[in-house]
Amino acid sequence: MRKRGIKMDIQYDCVILGHGPAGLQAAIHAARKKAKVIVLGRAEASSLWRAHMENYFGVKGPVSGEELIRIGIEQAKESGAEVLEEDVVKVEQIEGDAYMVTTETKKHLNTYTIIFAMGVSRKGLGLKREKDLIGRGISYCVDCDANFFRNAKVAVVGNGSAAADGALTLSKIASEVTMITDDLNISKSLDEELKSANVELIKGDKIKELIGDNALTAIRLESGRVVELDGLFIEKGAKGAMSLAALLGVQMDPETFQYIVTDRKQRTNLPGIYAAGDITGMPFQVAKAVGEGCVAGMEAASYAIKKRREQKGAQSE
Amino acid sequence: MRKRGIKMDIQYDCVILGHGPAGLQAAIHAARKKAKVIVLGRAEASSLWRAHMENYFGVKGPVSGEELIRIGIEQAKESGAEVLEEDVVKVEQIEGDAYMVTTETKKHLNTYTIIFAMGVSRKGLGLKREKDLIGRGISYCVDCDANFFRNAKVAVVGNGSAAADGALTLSKIASEVTMITDDLNISKSLDEELKSANVELIKGDKIKELIGDNALTAIRLESGRVVELDGLFIEKGAKGAMSLAALLGVQMDPETFQYIVTDRKQRTNLPGIYAAGDITGMPFQVAKAVGEGCVAGMEAASYAIKKRREQKGAQSE
Repeated sequence: MRKRGIKMDIQYDCVILGHGPAGLQAAIHAARKKAKVIVLGRAEASSLWRAHMENYFGVKGPVSGEELIRIGIEQAKESGAEVLEEDVVKVEQIEGDAYMVTTETKKHLNTYTIIFAMGVSRKGLGLKREKDLIGRGISYCVDCDANFFRNAKVAVVGNGSAAADGALTLSKIASEVTMITDDLNISKSLDEELKSANVELIKGDKIKELIGDNALTAIRLESGRVVELDGLFIEKGAKGAMSLAALLGVQMDPETFQYIVTDRKQRTNLPGIYAAGDITGMPFQVAKAVGEGCVAGMEAASYAIKKRREQKGAQSE
Repeated sequence: MRKRGIKMDIQYDCVILGHGPAGLQAAIHAARKKAKVIVLGRAEASSLWRAHMENYFGVKGPVSGEELIRIGIEQAKESGAEVLEEDVVKVEQIEGDAYMVTTETKKHLNTYTIIFAMGVSRKGLGLKREKDLIGRGISYCVDCDANFFRNAKVAVVGNGSAAADGALTLSKIASEVTMITDDLNISKSLDEELKSANVELIKGDKIKELIGDNALTAIRLESGRVVELDGLFIEKGAKGAMSLAALLGVQMDPETFQYIVTDRKQRTNLPGIYAAGDITGMPFQVAKAVGEGCVAGMEAASYAIKKRREQKGAQSE
């Protein structure tokens, strides 16, 4: 863990992960409380981006999600928040109840609070029995569940950094790792790491069928090939919020392990860590997301401003 | 308590009290789940009505609250909800986990669920030390606090039905009741009841000063008169949500007794009773209100539809 003289360089009060309604509403409210706020993520990654809305109070529908997000970004900026279109690859605790967020271009942002507002990945495979087999061989989070597959045979499916990164992690834990991708799209360095790791790469193929009664035992690919395995990790898109949160020690919903648990102030089990929007569970609605974003933003801003004042006091003594 | 054959005439799945962002968002979501929904209250009573917004995600500001509410009412109607511009005077439990809501024109609405979304009264007197003395002689809810003033000297201030009704209630509990009003505006029958009750009515006067160090001991009126008392009830506007909720047995925030306690699904301690918006506590923000309204509406609709199905099943057996 990289340690820094924290009194000097906590640049942000509030780093918000996610560019959707929850993250942007949080940014608006935190920035209006005069907190130093930055919003990370990609607008197009929000599930709202491609949606059309007519059930959001006060907004005549149908209105495109893209338009709402564009307006939300303007509102966040006008309120004083910075907006940076970059994904996050790492979140870690540093001294003094502060955190360091690392972006995909290796920017390090130190902050008193983080709001997880990255939504949930609804990018399942859409295969028969996929939902039944969750927790029975199927997982959506390598960082959460890899340890259940020590010395087992596993596969990862996906085309992006999350899948590649997941395969690398699993190659250190499982006995056999297969990565299935039909359109691999990762950085050169990650590709090289993958090639030198103990991972069998199946390119240009897709999963057609999940096999197994009470638990997954094999998958059949479109090419006809059958791969026997104990576990299948579905990792689509960028590094998932769940992986980041789980590695930090944020408490998850103990039943499904798919959502972050918060109280009514959107606080998680860790001081300074908040969550808002789809990531805290159903219903997956814009109205619920903005409501939680509002509360998370205001709570995080108050907490950070108090923290900053305390540390300034301690410094000047 | 009026009992009815409940299998026959539970007309509504969801009665929503309040015409602001929380109530209307709840109506939209409940009605879209095919629940039978009615929204009661007055649009102008929402604290949003006279406000201007620029911090509500996706809506370019400044926009008038009135416009948002007008759009919200349209959305609620288009989603299938009825909208009735009437205040509620009574809420009571009837058999079978159902409730009866009585409106000011004596309409009786039977329902499986109620969502309290009437906001909070921010109509204090605006006097020096008013906030310090809350719970130390000053109360905003006769129905909540009257019993603390058994055989004591109390006053009620206000011009409407809540104040008059409060004075009548107190006249049965306290030893001396004074009602202070500068512009009495109540129904003829209530006026007659008031005259025949043991209430001293001071008309055309206002409270100028609150007297007392640790607790309220007296008030000074603009006319110069000083009234010694143990308790002062500030009851402005229509019958307050808090009174309705308290009489029903809904759990209040134990510290301030100003808010309804809910869980993350907006459920109160009573089955079928939900709350959303300012009435559940700070922050008083449109975003938070719509978020809670969304959750309350969806939860109430699911609960009611299940209840209706169960009772239909029981009936046909």
